[in-house]
Amino acid sequence: MNTYTVKAFGTEAPEAALKEMNIERREVTATDVEIEILYCGVCHSDLHTARNEWHGTIYPNVPGHEIVGRIIKIGSGVTRFKAGDLAAVGCMVDSCRECESCKEGLEQYCEQGNTGTYNSPDKYLGTHTFGGYSQSVVVDEAFVLHVPENLDLAATAPLLCAGITTYSPLRHWNVGPGKKVGIVGIGGLGHMGVKLAKAMGAHVVVITTSTSKVEDAKRLGADEVILSTDEAQMNAHVGTFHFMLDCVSAQHDINAYLRLLKRDGSLTLVGAPEHPLPVAPFSLIPARKSFSGSMIGGISETQEMLDFCGKHNITSDIELIRMQDINDAYERLLKGDVKYRFVIDMASLKA
Amino acid sequence: MNTYTVKAFGTEAPEAALKEMNIERREVTATDVEIEILYCGVCHSDLHTARNEWHGTIYPNVPGHEIVGRIIKIGSGVTRFKAGDLAAVGCMVDSCRECESCKEGLEQYCEQGNTGTYNSPDKYLGTHTFGGYSQSVVVDEAFVLHVPENLDLAATAPLLCAGITTYSPLRHWNVGPGKKVGIVGIGGLGHMGVKLAKAMGAHVVVITTSTSKVEDAKRLGADEVILSTDEAQMNAHVGTFHFMLDCVSAQHDINAYLRLLKRDGSLTLVGAPEHPLPVAPFSLIPARKSFSGSMIGGISETQEMLDFCGKHNITSDIELIRMQDINDAYERLLKGDVKYRFVIDMASLKA
Repeated sequence: MNTYTVKAFGTEAPEAALKEMNIERREVTATDVEIEILYCGVCHSDLHTARNEWHGTIYPNVPGHEIVGRIIKIGSGVTRFKAGDLAAVGCMVDSCRECESCKEGLEQYCEQGNTGTYNSPDKYLGTHTFGGYSQSVVVDEAFVLHVPENLDLAATAPLLCAGITTYSPLRHWNVGPGKKVGIVGIGGLGHMGVKLAKAMGAHVVVITTSTSKVEDAKRLGADEVILSTDEAQMNAHVGTFHFMLDCVSAQHDINAYLRLLKRDGSLTLVGAPEHPLPVAPFSLIPARKSFSGSMIGGISETQEMLDFCGKHNITSDIELIRMQDINDAYERLLKGDVKYRFVIDMASLKA
Repeated sequence: MNTYTVKAFGTEAPEAALKEMNIERREVTATDVEIEILYCGVCHSDLHTARNEWHGTIYPNVPGHEIVGRIIKIGSGVTRFKAGDLAAVGCMVDSCRECESCKEGLEQYCEQGNTGTYNSPDKYLGTHTFGGYSQSVVVDEAFVLHVPENLDLAATAPLLCAGITTYSPLRHWNVGPGKKVGIVGIGGLGHMGVKLAKAMGAHVVVITTSTSKVEDAKRLGADEVILSTDEAQMNAHVGTFHFMLDCVSAQHDINAYLRLLKRDGSLTLVGAPEHPLPVAPFSLIPARKSFSGSMIGGISETQEMLDFCGKHNITSDIELIRMQDINDAYERLLKGDVKYRFVIDMASLKA
């Protein structure tokens, strides 16, 4: 298969800094589009993978799965895109397309495992996939999204992971008017959860450990903010939430949040703490509550989310950085020092 | 309020044996029925409460919430029962009847807390409620069930707790034809879960730690049996269950069972281990799974369950004991030495 060489930023080992490197991209096949990457969001998963914190990282590793750009080439059979179109790629670039989940449009839950945008087997080149910290990417059009023209393009990039990761469970658990929804933790995921739940018409309550985030949560659209360290505030909301979206990736006491749910309510994890979370049976049994998890969203739902964001003028709050600043950005990410998502200006990679 | 005295069996302290005692029952009010208790099942909750293992036990304590008998007196306003009718009482004898849960027929989740058949505040007498280890009980007809005439009456008693506790979640999570359902643990609850899920038309798989229960699980109706200690057997079922009902009250590794669920599957606790169960976020997130709990069932659903059992000729497998043997029965219960429910023949209390 013919390939071409592009500049990228990646890492050779868990402890190594990210640096500029060259990678190969395939020439477009009949159903592929080639996208010039204009912006790429920085997800905490990028850092986990670069540093092999989830194990299984294949090196060299080029992270990045919040990709927006412009189509520069299309394959002979491509029907949904033309050169010059805005386009986006999220966490997946392929799936088996045949299992029950794929047929239901839930490619993220592909029973064969979806093909991640980075660090997955690359069936075309026999190597592994490289992500969006690069000049361009070649993807089957079935896994490429259209981007609303009215949104700020850099601030749109994080919708491809942080946006869909929060949108999908909010939809699945029927968040909307008349529902009281808790968003636990305000970071890259949580701040999108607030904006999306609010636009869906819910009564949105942010629950945060940090007094410094109270005002900002309200600015993002929260109707109320609870300081989780204030027992009186927590007690005032016991048994009142229809749904809670837990965006916290640090260890935390799930039972303290489960008790805030109403009967039949669900608390859904989208943040992924490293260690198991102890759940008391009596946090669930006496009101038929559920503790659940959710992972990104399917391709058609991702398009629905982008269209919803276009209609409601929703993007991420971002800090734009140069590709060369990625290692500093990772250090700041670890300290929670970003409001609320770093996005890489890929023009910097040309310099 | 006028009362009368009846013989009962109860305990005066956490460490004390159960013994015969006298208790007061109210005379029937307009909406009450008086039931001569013929049989009462022995639930593990009885033992937990008698010994104050869940704390909050008020002494003297008279356990028993799997009650079947015959109506011997009715209040002036009673419309649904007449003297001579078979009748049953389960875990609740009242609720607020006004909250959202009560209005939906989910009295077990009453937001004010339902009135337990024993060890709850008794609003009539100002004391606390006494359960079914007694000659008779007086209950508002709204919390009394009709008993199908075709069932063995003694073996019907456990339906009032073990039956409805398993029936309600099986219905709530839509168990039926085409669904693969796991019943984890075969005891008082689990053996009812197998019979009910099978009668609902599901493919029923029992998961047990005990080779000695394999044959019996099949006799009860299981289509397949998995030994949870056999890794190969467990691995063969990964990702295949639509629903799992966890009837185990001992500590156990929930993650080993969650991985057997299909996408969007739920594992629901009805057994209540004492300590929190650690749940790995990655047991839930990658296939949108839920870990949930369920508690008994509402009054109308309990009637539906009894009618279902009448139609399908389902009762509990029991060992009939004398009231005087209750302390020995508790010791055997602790060893799991019962197939599968003790039921007290209340005629023994007259002797």
